Amino acid sequence: MAFVVDIADPADPRLDDFRDLNSSDRRPDLPDGKGLVIAEGVLVAERLVQSRFRTHAFLGVERRRLELLDTIADLDVPFYRTTADVMADVVGFHLNRGVLAAAHRPPALELDDVLDGARTVAVLEGVNDHENLGSMFRNAAGLGADAVLFGDKCADPLYRRAVRVSMGHVLRVPFARVPDWPRGLDLIRQKGFQVIALTPNPTAVPLAQAMTGERVALLLGAEGPGLAEHTMRATDVRARIPMAPGTDSLNVATAAAMAFYERVRMQG
Amino acid sequence: MAFVVDIADPADPRLDDFRDLNSSDRRPDLPDGKGLVIAEGVLVAERLVQSRFRTHAFLGVERRRLELLDTIADLDVPFYRTTADVMADVVGFHLNRGVLAAAHRPPALELDDVLDGARTVAVLEGVNDHENLGSMFRNAAGLGADAVLFGDKCADPLYRRAVRVSMGHVLRVPFARVPDWPRGLDLIRQKGFQVIALTPNPTAVPLAQAMTGERVALLLGAEGPGLAEHTMRATDVRARIPMAPGTDSLNVATAAAMAFYERVRMQG
Repeated sequence: MAFVVDIADPADPRLDDFRDLNSSDRRPDLPDGKGLVIAEGVLVAERLVQSRFRTHAFLGVERRRLELLDTIADLDVPFYRTTADVMADVVGFHLNRGVLAAAHRPPALELDDVLDGARTVAVLEGVNDHENLGSMFRNAAGLGADAVLFGDKCADPLYRRAVRVSMGHVLRVPFARVPDWPRGLDLIRQKGFQVIALTPNPTAVPLAQAMTGERVALLLGAEGPGLAEHTMRATDVRARIPMAPGTDSLNVATAAAMAFYERVRMQG
Repeated sequence: MAFVVDIADPADPRLDDFRDLNSSDRRPDLPDGKGLVIAEGVLVAERLVQSRFRTHAFLGVERRRLELLDTIADLDVPFYRTTADVMADVVGFHLNRGVLAAAHRPPALELDDVLDGARTVAVLEGVNDHENLGSMFRNAAGLGADAVLFGDKCADPLYRRAVRVSMGHVLRVPFARVPDWPRGLDLIRQKGFQVIALTPNPTAVPLAQAMTGERVALLLGAEGPGLAEHTMRATDVRARIPMAPGTDSLNVATAAAMAFYERVRMQG
């Protein structure tokens, strides 16, 4: 059982792993800083504990600890118990979820390991919005996509806000970096994946016709710029989601959801 | 051409329609207060001007006015020109989009008028999150759904944040209230719509099989609670999006997007 440590002083250094969560240069989940992962709320904390990440501390109010009793039963780590006010002082804002969990980042997964056994993967380029990244993982989990891969210029999927928006699924759905972007797409193709670029371009093939592979890698770019042309050229086919004229491209996580749905639909 | 009125004093009463935008009890876009609609940014302001809403004033910096010149060319309304700092003082926070437009709400559309000619409509119950509402309208516009209808307990789709997240599509996609909820669903059915409840329940029919009508009304509830059971009973069929086991239900706007996509796909 995670052992209770009561803390009344927000300056207590034992809480440093939860301090200044909104600080752009001090927050503990900066990948080049402390490199932690912070889970907010009971549901996401549960998913952190069940994940490949090793949870090493909790900070929360008693009510949330009681909700987590089963989850923390087998852990030998501190649960720093305090009040909502002290928590707010520590993290830097009022946190209405009442509990946080912290873990160290394990080594990144290798592309080969993530592709092994996968049938549907998303590959992202330039997706630098944490909420979109979080939604992407949530949709991948919900619709049974196997992994998310990162090309260039994507934001950190393990930032607290992405973790929260993903409802913790960023801790569960495997992800890896594609090296030597975009040439590294060949590594995916060599595993037998059909590499499909999603684009709003009306001359592209409708998604349902384009997706013919047994294994499929779906490339998505950020809203607005979309995929770079030289990335498009490194794919097997350009596919579009049929859109109404005069509208904007869909949110990238929504576009991905539609492609994942199409996969599920085809597999019956 | 909208005429320029330079304003240097944030307390100037001519700016009252843009004042305290984040105030929960004074903001000008409260439906029971001033009842305005506030568009933020160039794109959404353009869409407001092109909509059925009558824009009556702008507040913004010169750079944004220049970007809007074509849009405001035929309008005989004031463009209150000021600095970003004065704008921040007026609205109550720093607004990086640099321009706002205000319109009065026109009379609500009637259900009959909105259904006339429509083939695909979403019907919402308990969707009280403004961002979800905004995303719903954006997805409806992008995927060619014809209207959004409101049952009980939904948030105001014309609140600034919903307008912004919709990218202005809440100003374009018609919406109306369904009276006498949920019995009012009969009014929709009488127009020849198949009334389909979306549910994560694994015993429901897969969406692609359930959607057989020429005209389709897709009922969606909020994440978590979903549709009320007595609402479900007032529908023709319960349909599910095939989900991976052990995951959460999809965001309501994402679920709607998938149903809209399925419609587009079926119509070839």
